Amino acid sequence: MKKRQLGPCVTFFPQPATLVVTRDAAGQSNIMMASWTGIVSKTPPTLAVSLHHSRRTYANISETGLFSVNMVPSHLVVEADFCGLASGTNLDKATITGLNVKDTPNGVPCLTESPLSVECRFTREVALGEYRLTLAEILEINADEAAFDTHGSANVLAFDPLVYLGGLREYWSLGVKQADAYRAGLKLMP
Amino acid sequence: MKKRQLGPCVTFFPQPATLVVTRDAAGQSNIMMASWTGIVSKTPPTLAVSLHHSRRTYANISETGLFSVNMVPSHLVVEADFCGLASGTNLDKATITGLNVKDTPNGVPCLTESPLSVECRFTREVALGEYRLTLAEILEINADEAAFDTHGSANVLAFDPLVYLGGLREYWSLGVKQADAYRAGLKLMP
Repeated sequence: MKKRQLGPCVTFFPQPATLVVTRDAAGQSNIMMASWTGIVSKTPPTLAVSLHHSRRTYANISETGLFSVNMVPSHLVVEADFCGLASGTNLDKATITGLNVKDTPNGVPCLTESPLSVECRFTREVALGEYRLTLAEILEINADEAAFDTHGSANVLAFDPLVYLGGLREYWSLGVKQADAYRAGLKLMP
Repeated sequence: MKKRQLGPCVTFFPQPATLVVTRDAAGQSNIMMASWTGIVSKTPPTLAVSLHHSRRTYANISETGLFSVNMVPSHLVVEADFCGLASGTNLDKATITGLNVKDTPNGVPCLTESPLSVECRFTREVALGEYRLTLAEILEINADEAAFDTHGSANVLAFDPLVYLGGLREYWSLGVKQADAYRAGLKLMP
């Protein structure tokens, strides 16, 4: 396959389209779109999200130490994209989008409309140029009850997660299941 | 929406299904499946991948400092899953899967069959329990020439990226484009 060199850039996909929810010390919520986020350890469960140091979300986490990373269902693509375009310094994004923020028993503000919310407590950060790689202990994960069957199996399409294509700047939904992980590859095992 | 608490765990999706390609100091290649990876800075372009400290891939990066993170096209789901199941300590995964590893002019081993390869040079690591969050400078990104039209626009479906659903242990393809990022949300701007 012939390859085109894109240079050193940040074109990489698929990525999760998520909304990071925070509050400042006075309790005012903010909702920010983030795709530079993911799991980084199981011992203990740890999530990382990289934030520009000028973002309201970064300031809020510095103040309170608590935040959530929320899966975006496809039908909220417009609201989510708005939360990436607008600054929480000037606008109340929850009011404008109609999205709802509610605190969990752990005191973590989560997005009511998200089918998968990861509750996080800040542990440390790594400075990377203008960005801060923010590491956090996962306190709890809340999933939409309606996505589970009576055997406890979860239906992917009930979550309907939005996928972000970084570099191409497009949002897509999921299509067709290709295989079960940790099983499909067994047929090649010598 | 009623929520089910999953506890502190690592159920999080969508995630990228990628293959990390390395060589040991003697030149022997290894291919490992990884979904705990993503962009973490633009200044300069930086990628992070979290690796269990016992993995051959982690040892190889410690030896050479060079690796690539390669998008998996959907049709290689079986080969990719095998590269997550098998250990490079005992098996030559390239030979078994039929996948090909070739060094770029930067000396970075990349997967020939991948439509998007990110060439990386190790910069530093963060210990997180049994895992090492490995940070790397992005040296180059190589994309399948056939995915671009004459205007330079890239066709998502030509990449056909595989998406991993962590926690549910399923691989999916992309479905339908939902919106353009940085544009769809403008309609909510006051």
